[in-house]
Amino acid sequence: MTSISKDPTRERLLRAAGELFYREGVATVGVERLCQAAGASKRSLYQLFASKDELAAESLRAFGAQEVAGYVSPAATDLTPRARILQVFQRLEERAAAPGFHGCPFVNTAVEMHDATHPASAVAREFKDRLTAYFEKQAKLGHARHPKALAAQLTMVFDGAAVRAVMRAAGLDGLAVRAATTLLDAAGLDVPA
Amino acid sequence: MTSISKDPTRERLLRAAGELFYREGVATVGVERLCQAAGASKRSLYQLFASKDELAAESLRAFGAQEVAGYVSPAATDLTPRARILQVFQRLEERAAAPGFHGCPFVNTAVEMHDATHPASAVAREFKDRLTAYFEKQAKLGHARHPKALAAQLTMVFDGAAVRAVMRAAGLDGLAVRAATTLLDAAGLDVPA
Repeated sequence: MTSISKDPTRERLLRAAGELFYREGVATVGVERLCQAAGASKRSLYQLFASKDELAAESLRAFGAQEVAGYVSPAATDLTPRARILQVFQRLEERAAAPGFHGCPFVNTAVEMHDATHPASAVAREFKDRLTAYFEKQAKLGHARHPKALAAQLTMVFDGAAVRAVMRAAGLDGLAVRAATTLLDAAGLDVPA
Repeated sequence: MTSISKDPTRERLLRAAGELFYREGVATVGVERLCQAAGASKRSLYQLFASKDELAAESLRAFGAQEVAGYVSPAATDLTPRARILQVFQRLEERAAAPGFHGCPFVNTAVEMHDATHPASAVAREFKDRLTAYFEKQAKLGHARHPKALAAQLTMVFDGAAVRAVMRAAGLDGLAVRAATTLLDAAGLDVPA
């Protein structure tokens, strides 16, 4: 995990892009502003990335893993599958109520791109699929009926809850956890003893 | 409903903004392009609207009512409250599977603005609240438990489903209707005889 092989300008551009795009939007933040925030020249940016679009995709990829990791628990914990799924929604509720929450970066990017074939949209979908796969895995472990459909529905609740928090600039008051719980109950996911 | 008192340039700008912003995003579509599409000068635009932001808010307001009307049924129909709620999700499924669907314009605008205090975000929230109020009214008529919480959760499912369709450029395969049905069942909403 040493960064000796990494280009520091590239790293700074990725970090600035990740932060500014998340906070203000990909289309809103211009290349000038990005370069200023990263302490990089436009020339460097275009030497390192083919386009702003590619930078958007790469910065989402660079920070996507830690975003997903912020919601899911490592397999080693002794939580039940049901508790692991609910924890995702509890964390979303915590984050949505905290300052600096601007929604789900994958949802935001996909919506902002207005084009599912855009490279950044593809990265967004890829990470969203990881969350859905996590739900499906836990659903299977917890003996849920129709684990695939349940996982997709939980993802819809997650995304809709993130949108709600953004739209209202307010927390979720337990609504995301309640909706997820209802879906888990209906799917017969094992309740912890 | 005569348009005799309306400024035709204003109408053209509102229409062009409504269409282009929905299809490509508010930040993406520049003022030049808007004016070209509307056959209007930049001077006219700034005489009629204080800013592009105001035009975004006004165009969403101009087309918001018909967007909501596309989902909800007039009170006069003889559908049950449960069927009225499910119809919203059935229509979303139909739209999401059809070409030209770019998600919910209110969700898109709120996400793209990255600022809940932006005038366009306020309009988006206002129309989203109308859908939630419709759900709540039907939930009460159908004797649901916690109609307010149910309505908020249904709205989250609606928004998450719209995001899913955008992210995948694909239909919903009944997932939105299934999730909504599960929430209605759990809330004890009257099943039609």
